[in-house]
Amino acid sequence: MSNNVIVGQSGGPTSVINASLAGVFAQAKASNLGIIYGMRNGIKGFLERRNIDMSQYVKNKVDLELLKRTPSSFLGSCRYKLPNADENPEVYRQIFEILNEMGIGYFFYIGGNDSMDTIMKLSQYGEKVGSSIRFMGVPKTIDNDLAVTDHSPGFGSAAKYIACTIKEMILDARVYNNSAVTIVEVMGRNTGWLAGSAALARGDDSPGPDLIFLPEITFNVNSFLDKVAKLTADHPPTIVVSEGIKMSDGRYVNEVAAENNTVDAFGHKQLSGTASYLSQEVHRNLGVKTRAIEFATIQRCAAHLQSLTDVTEAFAVGADAVKAAKEGSTNQVVIIQRLSTEPYAFATNSIDIAKMANIEKKVPMEWVNESRDGVTREFLDYARPMIQGEVSPYYADGMPRHIRLP
Amino acid sequence: MSNNVIVGQSGGPTSVINASLAGVFAQAKASNLGIIYGMRNGIKGFLERRNIDMSQYVKNKVDLELLKRTPSSFLGSCRYKLPNADENPEVYRQIFEILNEMGIGYFFYIGGNDSMDTIMKLSQYGEKVGSSIRFMGVPKTIDNDLAVTDHSPGFGSAAKYIACTIKEMILDARVYNNSAVTIVEVMGRNTGWLAGSAALARGDDSPGPDLIFLPEITFNVNSFLDKVAKLTADHPPTIVVSEGIKMSDGRYVNEVAAENNTVDAFGHKQLSGTASYLSQEVHRNLGVKTRAIEFATIQRCAAHLQSLTDVTEAFAVGADAVKAAKEGSTNQVVIIQRLSTEPYAFATNSIDIAKMANIEKKVPMEWVNESRDGVTREFLDYARPMIQGEVSPYYADGMPRHIRLP
Repeated sequence: MSNNVIVGQSGGPTSVINASLAGVFAQAKASNLGIIYGMRNGIKGFLERRNIDMSQYVKNKVDLELLKRTPSSFLGSCRYKLPNADENPEVYRQIFEILNEMGIGYFFYIGGNDSMDTIMKLSQYGEKVGSSIRFMGVPKTIDNDLAVTDHSPGFGSAAKYIACTIKEMILDARVYNNSAVTIVEVMGRNTGWLAGSAALARGDDSPGPDLIFLPEITFNVNSFLDKVAKLTADHPPTIVVSEGIKMSDGRYVNEVAAENNTVDAFGHKQLSGTASYLSQEVHRNLGVKTRAIEFATIQRCAAHLQSLTDVTEAFAVGADAVKAAKEGSTNQVVIIQRLSTEPYAFATNSIDIAKMANIEKKVPMEWVNESRDGVTREFLDYARPMIQGEVSPYYADGMPRHIRLP
Repeated sequence: MSNNVIVGQSGGPTSVINASLAGVFAQAKASNLGIIYGMRNGIKGFLERRNIDMSQYVKNKVDLELLKRTPSSFLGSCRYKLPNADENPEVYRQIFEILNEMGIGYFFYIGGNDSMDTIMKLSQYGEKVGSSIRFMGVPKTIDNDLAVTDHSPGFGSAAKYIACTIKEMILDARVYNNSAVTIVEVMGRNTGWLAGSAALARGDDSPGPDLIFLPEITFNVNSFLDKVAKLTADHPPTIVVSEGIKMSDGRYVNEVAAENNTVDAFGHKQLSGTASYLSQEVHRNLGVKTRAIEFATIQRCAAHLQSLTDVTEAFAVGADAVKAAKEGSTNQVVIIQRLSTEPYAFATNSIDIAKMANIEKKVPMEWVNESRDGVTREFLDYARPMIQGEVSPYYADGMPRHIRLP
């Protein structure tokens, strides 16, 4: 049987998506599989035959450690949606032709919901044509919206960045004795996992954010303004909003103001400007100074603040995908199972990818507080283990060192 | 002679302004001065008699280390502009009355240009009324625009944050094979020190930002668009702009679009939205996807990424202000002198505060490249020592630990 390996990365990058790549690579070597190919820019680059031999770039243990510490997708990414096989059999014929030419026996795809859909389609087509290639999904997403897995690699580091930065910003926001309002927008189109994790900033050395608004809860501008007005009487408040909070009529808050909304290849609306819009509303209605801050791409690539737990788990799901495939699994994805919260312990497991693909995990209503502007202790107990531990970047000349394809 | 000490912080906070406070506190204790008071919210809080006994809050070496690692102004800040003594003698009479009541012999004020102006006015008034109180300035500003001193405490950590984050964001921006343009706005009303330091991201593992625009150089939108168009043909570019870049008619770039510009207590225009405006221009003219990112307050409070050099120097200027005052200095500010660039070595010195107050140090023209869209090697040689070394935050439960007044 063909023994070569190919691995790709897809969707939005994270701080630890390369730790999963490192896990696939290290385990494939340890398992004595064949050549380990990387596809540049995901399945799209694969179709253009832009594949590399990973061993030429990851040559030793230091390279492997650098890969774990390098944010974004080492191999590049794509947002190419694989058509259904009955709609476009040609693209599948082409993919399998290249796979067979390259002697691929193992195919790994690191990504979110859409990438799992890709793996599922390829597995199904492979089964239909009698291919022995094993297809495995490796989960990643800062949004933490993947189903079945307790949480997703990428979430912990993004949560750590968000909570840490908000903790620092609150100190900054409170230096003046005034009523200025800071509104911070974090990623999260339909789920509030990242917004909620801002509450991890709270502790005996920080008041944490004053209000947190999740996309799971219908947003009401008037009630928001009332709450903000009350807070400003006491101190300059810091408020966190998900980019995807929606009004009762179903429109995204920023859609109300946005002039033009574009749609990406997966039909998702491109959002931006929720904090900016709300900040204008606060200024207009309450007459106080406001500041809108978007963490934008920083929250998903701030690898200098990786969570050690997240890096460990990202590596593990990559490595365990290889182990499972070696043992015969295909059409599966590796998930994280929580064995215990205190002390935190996890295990990995492989499950049928159909259980994950195209399903979105939202924050449960019981984990949102009664006043619908924050999260409960249960949310924090769930999320806190994910931000534990630090990874020291390899600093050289004052900068974190990275590994990068030419 | 009165032996008590009072210290205050003023102006915008930085990541290391508390390291200077720690320096003043530690040296005042070591020098066996009296009670060490801290004024809450600067001279404004002092006038309201909101002063604390620092020893009640900084009780041991761990507290002192936490103080060095805590961003923003521990004592709070103000933007109160001290009137001239001949215009408003009452406020001076009141200040000196409180100082005498408290038995103050030493007065330290940590801040930027405006704070140096405050120290100068108080010294002059003190001299006039025959006070023996010694007034010393301790410099801080992320903007690095203070005169005479080789550089300003606060700059190094902000520069390290900016360069590091841009290095990470460039990896993120290049994952897709497209022509999306990222425009990053950094602080710098009239000087481009921070924008220029983004070039420190460049190295054999990073291309660094493609273009950098400083406020020292007149900004031309058409030439900007031409340059961006050329870059997008090759890769998705990352561009850095100072918030304060100006058109040839002297207007700030964001003023062109801004509907309402407000003015702070010092008559400075409140700026925001330069990147956002340029990003719209690029999208409108070149039809490519754009992303505007503002580092906003994060760049001045990201203490989890402090530069060790910066912390060391911030502490030193605080401590040395106390030593100089003890030896009889007044109406002076402590500056940093560069003894050598490679290996980097510095010394501190006290100079007449009039040489610094109200003067703005700009990036020299020789340090801007020929095409006026970046900095030269001389700039980088100057700035690189400032970002060297790391300070490990005290992590507890996954978050950097801070010290905070109740």
